[in-house]
Amino acid sequence: MSSQKHENNKKKVALIGCGLIGQSWAINFLNAGFSVSLFDPMEGVIENAKEKIIAKLSDLQDHGLFNNRNISGYVDEIYLAQSLSEAIQDSVYIQESGPEDLFIKKELTQQIDTATPENIPIASSTSGIPTSLYASNLKGRYRCLVAHPINPPHLIPAVEIVPAPFTSEAITQNVKEIIISIDKEPLELKKEIPGFVVNRLQGALLSEAFNLVKDGISTAEDIDKAISQGLGLRWSFMGPFQTIHLNAPEGIAGYVERYEKMYREMFNKPDMDWSSVVKLGLEEELLNLYQLSDREKQEKERDDKLTKLFLHKIKP
Amino acid sequence: MSSQKHENNKKKVALIGCGLIGQSWAINFLNAGFSVSLFDPMEGVIENAKEKIIAKLSDLQDHGLFNNRNISGYVDEIYLAQSLSEAIQDSVYIQESGPEDLFIKKELTQQIDTATPENIPIASSTSGIPTSLYASNLKGRYRCLVAHPINPPHLIPAVEIVPAPFTSEAITQNVKEIIISIDKEPLELKKEIPGFVVNRLQGALLSEAFNLVKDGISTAEDIDKAISQGLGLRWSFMGPFQTIHLNAPEGIAGYVERYEKMYREMFNKPDMDWSSVVKLGLEEELLNLYQLSDREKQEKERDDKLTKLFLHKIKP
Repeated sequence: MSSQKHENNKKKVALIGCGLIGQSWAINFLNAGFSVSLFDPMEGVIENAKEKIIAKLSDLQDHGLFNNRNISGYVDEIYLAQSLSEAIQDSVYIQESGPEDLFIKKELTQQIDTATPENIPIASSTSGIPTSLYASNLKGRYRCLVAHPINPPHLIPAVEIVPAPFTSEAITQNVKEIIISIDKEPLELKKEIPGFVVNRLQGALLSEAFNLVKDGISTAEDIDKAISQGLGLRWSFMGPFQTIHLNAPEGIAGYVERYEKMYREMFNKPDMDWSSVVKLGLEEELLNLYQLSDREKQEKERDDKLTKLFLHKIKP
Repeated sequence: MSSQKHENNKKKVALIGCGLIGQSWAINFLNAGFSVSLFDPMEGVIENAKEKIIAKLSDLQDHGLFNNRNISGYVDEIYLAQSLSEAIQDSVYIQESGPEDLFIKKELTQQIDTATPENIPIASSTSGIPTSLYASNLKGRYRCLVAHPINPPHLIPAVEIVPAPFTSEAITQNVKEIIISIDKEPLELKKEIPGFVVNRLQGALLSEAFNLVKDGISTAEDIDKAISQGLGLRWSFMGPFQTIHLNAPEGIAGYVERYEKMYREMFNKPDMDWSSVVKLGLEEELLNLYQLSDREKQEKERDDKLTKLFLHKIKP
């Protein structure tokens, strides 16, 4: 256990809303040394959640993961709270994973804010609703923000951190440190936007996928394979920008020079202007991350990773 | 070697255009028992390509792949042709991987068509130009179609097969069989469309990624991580439809019921209508592929695969 994790010992976090997402958060926090208080307004949910958490921890241990301690050691750190205030009491962090409904989120966040001592962060798992929309009228809005995980959150590293304009920087910093301490990768947005980054990227791809089915171009099965046997292989270890940066000898600028016209025409968007984005900083950022002088090495690394992924996937 | 591969022995394919894509095709065909004729109008390209092919085969063999025979055995099956007609002579299949330029592709395909005996398929690696646009005036247009691989094609299984309305069904069938015989996964489009499926999906995601950078929402680095530490992990073994089908207890219909409004609002597209696509066949297709009664098993399989992928990725 890292020293960071050691510091987490004896600290408690409150998990409000204990469906699949809340359960996964519990696994993450428990593995990092925290204890967790579970609360859900629906009867029977927390008892069921506890069972699911234990079953999943056991599965993970069968794979050689999350084996800091025996299952019974984890079980001792799961508290079932009978009320919101009981869950929140003595917690250093609140993660709300309630329904994806603006009205409910407003109500629930207000209740949490009232019950939570000052300076304790209140993070929401919402997959697309900005904090400005549900917390702007709260006294404690300065400690409200989004910490959006990806399903299943105990197995996916990325967590989007989306502060509102009114969120204090100290709170955002604190939340990022907590997310890092549970071995997750915080991705902080510079501005709020509905859907954040993850669901906007997913939504854009889904939107095109639905169109392709609607227009009778392809089956859902083949679209799925275009990703799972195609684009998704590279994307499992390099993002879309790094991918195209490596797909032309001159990097992103060369790629956009070659293919912008094709994309513009295929989507019938004559005003699509990737070249300006490239010139106004994107090329500079990518060249700093992935030097052109290093290109052959990067290509070889990509191919090595794809080869190993291929071997991994065909393993029985 | 499978019996299919055995049948490939002594058969020759012509690879016209020997940049990165042509080289990868060579590796795929050689490994499946074919011999390959390389031709490129630019001087020195085929000699360089042969060296690169051998170096890549050797890398792959170091990983335990493509080890049907010694490198020298492969080398014996690589022919360097000094002309288009020399490359095409006695070839059972032509794969053209020329520049992504409509004018050049028209010219080149015409030359290939003139030099190629009847009923031999002429496939293009184009990543977005439909065959109707470059071959409609050719005598042999009935045997022209697209076979679009994904970079790097020797490591990515998916190959899009895009026949034009004038492509004969027998040719399309023949090409699909050849693609399967070299261990690739043919995805046949039901209709031509610019950009096909793969680059339309990639383009839709890229388009949103460029917008997010332009609007100052996120850095390219974080957008890349949103995929490589996020969405791309699931996508490396399950496509976007299977992913969302598993993300709601009622499957795709439940997902769309819950999230269509969110996506519609985030993209400001009030006429986005995923529900109709679901009702008009998408739900039926997905329920046939992934039964709801099997749901718990499918979730467990996804989590097992993610766990193994996680372990694979952290391996030194």
